[in-house]
Amino acid sequence: MRIHHVALVVEDLEKAAQPYLRLGYTLEAQGRLEGLEVWMLKSGASRIELLQPIQPHTAAARFLRKRGPGLHHLALATPHLQTTLEHLAAQGAPLLEPSPRPGLGGPVAFIHPRWASGVLLELVETPE
Amino acid sequence: MRIHHVALVVEDLEKAAQPYLRLGYTLEAQGRLEGLEVWMLKSGASRIELLQPIQPHTAAARFLRKRGPGLHHLALATPHLQTTLEHLAAQGAPLLEPSPRPGLGGPVAFIHPRWASGVLLELVETPE
Repeated sequence: MRIHHVALVVEDLEKAAQPYLRLGYTLEAQGRLEGLEVWMLKSGASRIELLQPIQPHTAAARFLRKRGPGLHHLALATPHLQTTLEHLAAQGAPLLEPSPRPGLGGPVAFIHPRWASGVLLELVETPE
Repeated sequence: MRIHHVALVVEDLEKAAQPYLRLGYTLEAQGRLEGLEVWMLKSGASRIELLQPIQPHTAAARFLRKRGPGLHHLALATPHLQTTLEHLAAQGAPLLEPSPRPGLGGPVAFIHPRWASGVLLELVETPE
């Protein structure tokens, strides 16, 4: 299950994007999602997602206040998200939601960090 | 500059690897490097690096004590590391070392997290 993207929580999207733009990334998509402004940067098949909290009560806003900007979660790609979730749930993985919800580029679901040594894992459905 | 790997600091390599092994990753390489036991997991072109501190005075050991296990750094691939470092230094990027040093799979260098919104960036020289 390949890496779909690595997500960062940032204070300022434009400022945070600068180093990655210098390293060859381009802006693939942008949008607003659940109290966050989101920029997806892309270089080849690699993606870096920047999340800027715009509401104070989101988990990302709390993360920013507590830890400062930095790496937030790791997203892996799967072609059949619902099947993957059922498979993981049967193995006892602590899913944060039983069914996929809309993400910026398609259905997504999250697994609690206690399952993967402190890493919040996102699963992204993608045909690639 | 594509993502070469995402690195996690963990307490126990075998335990930390389990979720990724279930998700289709396999052990590509393992070794010992500067007070760390390192496992590199691979799925297709994606890599996840697990770092278990084995000496208390490393930066990774301090990270583990302070924050607990989780995402530690992001590594990007470049075919010509020395040239990339010179280019970045000329732009004022705060390199943690002026010249590449040996990594598990080839020469590497790090950039201070203040350059990339709190993200410790590693550059890995790879011909791919």
